[in-house]
Amino acid sequence: MNFLRRIVRPQTKEDENFYYELKELLNFKPIKLSHYKKAFTHRSLKLVDSKGNPINYERLEFLGDAILGSVIASYLYKKVPKGDEGYLTQMRSKVVSREHLNALGKDLELIRFVKSNISQDHISNNIYGNIFEALIGAIYLDRGYNYCHQFIYEQVILPYVDIERLEGKISSYKGFVIEWCQKKKKKYKFESYEDSGNQNKRHFSVRVSIDGTIVAKGRATSKKKAEEIAAKRVYYAMQSQMTNS
Amino acid sequence: MNFLRRIVRPQTKEDENFYYELKELLNFKPIKLSHYKKAFTHRSLKLVDSKGNPINYERLEFLGDAILGSVIASYLYKKVPKGDEGYLTQMRSKVVSREHLNALGKDLELIRFVKSNISQDHISNNIYGNIFEALIGAIYLDRGYNYCHQFIYEQVILPYVDIERLEGKISSYKGFVIEWCQKKKKKYKFESYEDSGNQNKRHFSVRVSIDGTIVAKGRATSKKKAEEIAAKRVYYAMQSQMTNS
Repeated sequence: MNFLRRIVRPQTKEDENFYYELKELLNFKPIKLSHYKKAFTHRSLKLVDSKGNPINYERLEFLGDAILGSVIASYLYKKVPKGDEGYLTQMRSKVVSREHLNALGKDLELIRFVKSNISQDHISNNIYGNIFEALIGAIYLDRGYNYCHQFIYEQVILPYVDIERLEGKISSYKGFVIEWCQKKKKKYKFESYEDSGNQNKRHFSVRVSIDGTIVAKGRATSKKKAEEIAAKRVYYAMQSQMTNS
Repeated sequence: MNFLRRIVRPQTKEDENFYYELKELLNFKPIKLSHYKKAFTHRSLKLVDSKGNPINYERLEFLGDAILGSVIASYLYKKVPKGDEGYLTQMRSKVVSREHLNALGKDLELIRFVKSNISQDHISNNIYGNIFEALIGAIYLDRGYNYCHQFIYEQVILPYVDIERLEGKISSYKGFVIEWCQKKKKKYKFESYEDSGNQNKRHFSVRVSIDGTIVAKGRATSKKKAEEIAAKRVYYAMQSQMTNS
């Protein structure tokens, strides 16, 4: 009940839309919208609060960067027990590279939320990664570390963090699955269909079957990504079967 | 109940001592001692687990460094609302500097727990900071982020993080309090006494009174530190009175 009371209902139509779009993006309910609004406010608007402190995403970016770093560190620590400190540091740098974060911010279409006074043409590519970090900062202030962890896991680690790929061992999971099936003389099928549900953005679902049995599914904003997600699941299922047998 | 079941009782006399010393250091109950043992194991022992993975503190140091960075970032974000990204980054670097962390590790006497094959004379000064970071990594694995936050708050932020001092504004809180009292024609007194309680290490308590009223207390492993802690409390009490009046 306490928790319910803490949810401040959006006051305006604009806030209401923002709330529902955020909720879909985050996969949980945001509580204090002002944190997220700040995460999407560019300094060019020159907003200040009642105490004269600037309202823009730059401080949240600092916070989000630190939280992201610690979540990725903890993931890598647990995921790669053989990796020494140097390896872990290097892997983390790859995951949180500007390039990686920009791709992520673009993929989540965070730019749709951004308020700024500069034209889209003059916005640097880095804004995508910056607002992604700021969003993590906002989640931390609004819901705490565990929600950041969940969001980063779902939005960064599952679709993007790929030890094998980062190490350069595997460049495409789909390619890996096809190669494996051909070697083992098994029939494989990647079936995809549009599956946008209630979401604004187009989504695709992919089913992978081997010898007529569906072995994994994937869903993403492009067919190629959904195929990779599904194929990665096949790959990891194979790995764990090999480990257990 | 589940929680109680998770507490594994120490098996040997050595483990029992380790458990109680840790509990006093951490200010909460450690659950899985093996994480902490790893945090204090130097690579020179060349220990490996059943899967051939090395047992030493180096990977935990990587993890603890990231967790420490995010806790300090969140503290600074909330504490200094006027500080921009550049300021926050610079302040964090000062707090987590090698020098700062080494001083901290020394102060907590973490070296008493370390197992290694090299003589004390050959141990680099950096080991103090490294095992402090590794300890944070162990706390994270054992009890999660919130316990790290608490430990870092009590052991790093309260006694060491001092925005005014880091900014170079105040070099000694005791000096500040004395100067203020002289200016305002008030009588001040710093009283100190030994107060080790049940702890192995000597501790000192300090009481600061102004015009005959005790206004703050401090406790630490040296008289000077305890005085600074107490004087810092006086300083912050003055600040908040000035803000509220």
